[in-house]
Amino acid sequence: MRTVAVTKIGSLRDPDDQTRGRIGVVDFPDQPLGPEDVRIRVAYSAICGSDPHLAEGFFGTDVPIGLGHELSGVVEALGERAHRTGLSIGDRVAGNFLRFCGTCTPCRTGRQQFCEHIQDYNRPGMAETVTWHESQVYRLPDSVSLLQGCLLEPTSVAVRIADKTNIRVGDRVAICGGGPIGQLALQVMRMNGATSLTLIEPIAERRAMAQRHGAQHVIDPITESQAVRAGEITDGRGFDVVIDASGSSRAVRGLLDIAAQGATVIYGAMYPHDFEMPLNLSDYLYLKELTLTGLFVSPYAFPRALQILPHLDLAELTQAVFDLEDAPEAFAVHVSGRYPKVILRCNDIVDEGAIA
Amino acid sequence: MRTVAVTKIGSLRDPDDQTRGRIGVVDFPDQPLGPEDVRIRVAYSAICGSDPHLAEGFFGTDVPIGLGHELSGVVEALGERAHRTGLSIGDRVAGNFLRFCGTCTPCRTGRQQFCEHIQDYNRPGMAETVTWHESQVYRLPDSVSLLQGCLLEPTSVAVRIADKTNIRVGDRVAICGGGPIGQLALQVMRMNGATSLTLIEPIAERRAMAQRHGAQHVIDPITESQAVRAGEITDGRGFDVVIDASGSSRAVRGLLDIAAQGATVIYGAMYPHDFEMPLNLSDYLYLKELTLTGLFVSPYAFPRALQILPHLDLAELTQAVFDLEDAPEAFAVHVSGRYPKVILRCNDIVDEGAIA
Amino acid sequence: MRTVAVTKIGSLRDPDDQTRGRIGVVDFPDQPLGPEDVRIRVAYSAICGSDPHLAEGFFGTDVPIGLGHELSGVVEALGERAHRTGLSIGDRVAGNFLRFCGTCTPCRTGRQQFCEHIQDYNRPGMAETVTWHESQVYRLPDSVSLLQGCLLEPTSVAVRIADKTNIRVGDRVAICGGGPIGQLALQVMRMNGATSLTLIEPIAERRAMAQRHGAQHVIDPITESQAVRAGEITDGRGFDVVIDASGSSRAVRGLLDIAAQGATVIYGAMYPHDFEMPLNLSDYLYLKELTLTGLFVSPYAFPRALQILPHLDLAELTQAVFDLEDAPEAFAVHVSGRYPKVILRCNDIVDEGAIA
Amino acid sequence: MRTVAVTKIGSLRDPDDQTRGRIGVVDFPDQPLGPEDVRIRVAYSAICGSDPHLAEGFFGTDVPIGLGHELSGVVEALGERAHRTGLSIGDRVAGNFLRFCGTCTPCRTGRQQFCEHIQDYNRPGMAETVTWHESQVYRLPDSVSLLQGCLLEPTSVAVRIADKTNIRVGDRVAICGGGPIGQLALQVMRMNGATSLTLIEPIAERRAMAQRHGAQHVIDPITESQAVRAGEITDGRGFDVVIDASGSSRAVRGLLDIAAQGATVIYGAMYPHDFEMPLNLSDYLYLKELTLTGLFVSPYAFPRALQILPHLDLAELTQAVFDLEDAPEAFAVHVSGRYPKVILRCNDIVDEGAIA
Repeated sequence: MRTVAVTKIGSLRDPDDQTRGRIGVVDFPDQPLGPEDVRIRVAYSAICGSDPHLAEGFFGTDVPIGLGHELSGVVEALGERAHRTGLSIGDRVAGNFLRFCGTCTPCRTGRQQFCEHIQDYNRPGMAETVTWHESQVYRLPDSVSLLQGCLLEPTSVAVRIADKTNIRVGDRVAICGGGPIGQLALQVMRMNGATSLTLIEPIAERRAMAQRHGAQHVIDPITESQAVRAGEITDGRGFDVVIDASGSSRAVRGLLDIAAQGATVIYGAMYPHDFEMPLNLSDYLYLKELTLTGLFVSPYAFPRALQILPHLDLAELTQAVFDLEDAPEAFAVHVSGRYPKVILRCNDIVDEGAIA
Repeated sequence: MRTVAVTKIGSLRDPDDQTRGRIGVVDFPDQPLGPEDVRIRVAYSAICGSDPHLAEGFFGTDVPIGLGHELSGVVEALGERAHRTGLSIGDRVAGNFLRFCGTCTPCRTGRQQFCEHIQDYNRPGMAETVTWHESQVYRLPDSVSLLQGCLLEPTSVAVRIADKTNIRVGDRVAICGGGPIGQLALQVMRMNGATSLTLIEPIAERRAMAQRHGAQHVIDPITESQAVRAGEITDGRGFDVVIDASGSSRAVRGLLDIAAQGATVIYGAMYPHDFEMPLNLSDYLYLKELTLTGLFVSPYAFPRALQILPHLDLAELTQAVFDLEDAPEAFAVHVSGRYPKVILRCNDIVDEGAIA
Repeated sequence: MRTVAVTKIGSLRDPDDQTRGRIGVVDFPDQPLGPEDVRIRVAYSAICGSDPHLAEGFFGTDVPIGLGHELSGVVEALGERAHRTGLSIGDRVAGNFLRFCGTCTPCRTGRQQFCEHIQDYNRPGMAETVTWHESQVYRLPDSVSLLQGCLLEPTSVAVRIADKTNIRVGDRVAICGGGPIGQLALQVMRMNGATSLTLIEPIAERRAMAQRHGAQHVIDPITESQAVRAGEITDGRGFDVVIDASGSSRAVRGLLDIAAQGATVIYGAMYPHDFEMPLNLSDYLYLKELTLTGLFVSPYAFPRALQILPHLDLAELTQAVFDLEDAPEAFAVHVSGRYPKVILRCNDIVDEGAIA
Repeated sequence: MRTVAVTKIGSLRDPDDQTRGRIGVVDFPDQPLGPEDVRIRVAYSAICGSDPHLAEGFFGTDVPIGLGHELSGVVEALGERAHRTGLSIGDRVAGNFLRFCGTCTPCRTGRQQFCEHIQDYNRPGMAETVTWHESQVYRLPDSVSLLQGCLLEPTSVAVRIADKTNIRVGDRVAICGGGPIGQLALQVMRMNGATSLTLIEPIAERRAMAQRHGAQHVIDPITESQAVRAGEITDGRGFDVVIDASGSSRAVRGLLDIAAQGATVIYGAMYPHDFEMPLNLSDYLYLKELTLTGLFVSPYAFPRALQILPHLDLAELTQAVFDLEDAPEAFAVHVSGRYPKVILRCNDIVDEGAIA
């Protein structure tokens, strides 16, 4: 089965062709169809901001490393007992690349994100097919196209970010970072009670995109004083919720200063393994009573992500589509930043269900 | 000082002129200006759905009973120590008709809504001026007109309703009752994460108004089966949040049936003193684990109500404006239901601040 | 396999021998051992207050109806893939009689209590052995005996009750009903921040038992004025948390009056199918802002129930033990109320692990 | 009025007599009695761990700096309108050294801890009398002596710590630091659902004291491996709640490693102004989803602190009592660490109310 994979460890941004990481399309064995499993013929599989981290060896260095966890497709086969969610052959679906076992202690305490068997069904989805446990699969609403549906997983991340903010309607919200997660979080927070909604982002195009999707304010942290602008926007009070979606060790430094007293600050990205942010306990936790937290994956969030998917404007995130075999080029375009999101077409599937 | 008041106890809907309650404009003594007080020349004062209940003697029967607690105006005088919020003469303001004492046990436990001295500053606001403690007064944003500003108080009620729902983004929400609180709650919940947002309301005009302001679905409980429609809208699961803004003993009966398992049901209106809703504990609290709650007033909600006020579409709620001296006619129009909201112009004030 | 069962539908309290329900010990077929299953040789299985409801046909009328869901035992066999929780043959265990499928929508939204396949592994545990999915099984700490361990399930219910109270340390708490769940809830709430902890119970022995286990006050609702006593105990403020563990339609009536403003009232028992409690919306939800809720089963609570089990004083709840074959007599004793809890010894197992 | 004060800025631990900070008893003018004020003849005033920080100039360097904010006493005079809480001359009281204005934005959003006028009534309480606004004063229960009552304020801090933990019954809890706040937090968490309750503290006497008051485990971080011990105590899972009450920049470093996945870590002490804790975002916020927060003061917590005060064992915290004029010696003893808490007797008052 044709599958996109990291075939050589290294930075995809490395200018030196000798040491640069490499993406290829290789043949992987078919995954077995267990009695509770669902085989999906993949329609679209999107490149995630974390994929280049995998190329750098963040989670391991044994190549080839299959890629792809943001996908949509059509049910092609069902295991003999895969009937708990009422799926049928031909159903248009998307889902969660992680299966939660339901048996380990984290699962039994309501913390699936720490499931001890979370990797059991984590299979590469930039492929002709993917086989998942039925608990990972969600039927798409008619109004969501297969192309839009491959964004269910990053949308679930934005939902989980929203959940962790504990926002109350009318709270002031800033988001740092205008990549796909930042843009999705912006749209989700806009419909989740945010006011004075502000995106902090050095790239002008991303700021403009945010303004087209509900940002009331944008800050360019290079040419503007982030602290001064935040003060103007919030009447000197700071933001009640600050979300980092940048993953940048430089960008996160000033975020505690633009947070309001008692605010919640969410670290919603991946950070360099060895980066330690200096945290002044006296200023930020004692005097200002900030709450800092983050998130790994998005348990319990998919059904609500499905509910909001039809309300999101995904046009700009679905304009760059490449064929599976052109994955190396697609990754090069992803790395270039030319498009906010790059998507692979893994099979040519006529999308009969989508109304919109 | 000219003040609108109940001058005779009785139902304003009573067809018999002899027994019908009466609204008049009478002279009340000026309120004293204490050292921490603020005198406001009232611009607009809106009729609340609860005002006719006062005419019926809900909170007492000694006439005249001064009316008006949804108001905006301009600061006319400040007590010698009324400087904690930085108010100046001429500021455009609105506020909370209740003062929380800060000293009683409820105030000291974070439950101002039960303040034991809550009535100390509750003064009629359908008047030429009203004098409040400075803690009750909020400066309006430039983008909010004085006419819109008199809706700050009902907006704070909608915010408090939203707070008590504990909604998570993507939850399905139904609102029963399309009066002013229902319409405001609809707009607030639309920007607070609601999906499948549904208004249940027998009057066609109110349903149409809801659809113009974000309702995805409407149900006419007279001609449609509320339960069947709810099932269709929610995929058979019911609504995660159900809000009653009707106050109708007939309307509230079926709401528990359209609530999803584990849902929250908010009773957000005033109900007849002696009405007892039959509550099947086995079906609704044991098997379905519903949470039922309600709210009296809206503490801690005004700053956030101010934040969202510029985002609400208040045009249809501010189209019927009467002069103070025409209060009897205004109340008759209110009772007729011809307009979703009726407002009194208490003074002719040029609104210099409003941009919109 | 010898199994205790309802062999004739009817009230176990019926004085008429002809119509009285009947409990017998009958032969049931062995349950199959699936690949992820665990077979437990049952040591002890306790009679639950809900068992007589089953005899009356609450959940169905096809006899025989196997009984028993509060049990402990020793692992006798493991399916070939039942290795996720590290269980071994001979392990001392207890568990949850319900298996949550992990695949249906409620499971995927973090609401296992509404699992759509909750009955799949609900098998009678007053038997020689029971076979469960491994996700239902928990290893007992060394300091908990097998006899104590059969109370893990009712303890999990008390934990879930505690979870739903949203108690803050120092809140005043009243519990209505001094049966096993009431007594366990009392002990759990005592270690969960409760002050002015009060048990309301007409039977003197149960009140005395509560006082031996941490109740600061007891109220006899027959001879005392519950409202007057509650006022004395709480300085006239009422209880911040009120828990009903009585299931009595008579007892629940006055509970809303002894609740403090803003209090939470938990209906933590089973109630007659057709009982409708009259709920004055104006008094209790509008003016007093009470929150009413209940619970069906106890998801996500077992690991913490295991943590607190060694801290509970279970001596009085484990003093009445009957052999499996004497189940009819055990049920008669249960119905008599002579002991707070009656337990069946299903096998004679030497308890090597227990320290205490 | 005789008042204990910092009379020279400097560390109280400085071995050099020339540069060491100095505590003296000086004459301060009487505080005026406003119409809503209460004058208290101070019985006891305890030395707080933060007082030496004041001597070092943490909050300002203009001497003399009056001290004392943990106090009890007897009402000596009432302003003409100080009748909202029903206080009478002679009442035994304690209270909050901070007055919350009720008018600024933080107060009006339910965040009194950030009150913009929080210092208005912050007056030295190691004095013959102190005059507070009535909202700061709480009547002591009969069962609490004046000597115990001066610990109401630190108890309120322990309550606020407990509030911020969001603990659920059965969660595992570790506390770092066995000073007065650590010991009080230990007792409060023991009655607030904690299991595996562990104190981490290098001083043997403080560990022994914790074991006398409910600690199930103690760790000496000097001679033991904190991480290894934590693993043993928690079955390798870590603590669900970790509370720092040490304020030590060395002690806080390892705390994130003994926290369980998804745990809450509370920084409940004062920290050096310029100390920056290195925080690895990838390890602790991304992969482990920890929540870090802290607290400044204890709003909304006093009524519940009063409720739990009779349940605390305060004997060891009230054994070292010095007369007001011996304050310099008392502070020297405090700094020596010989007693867990040192208290000043500010007046000789016969304690008629206390039962215990």
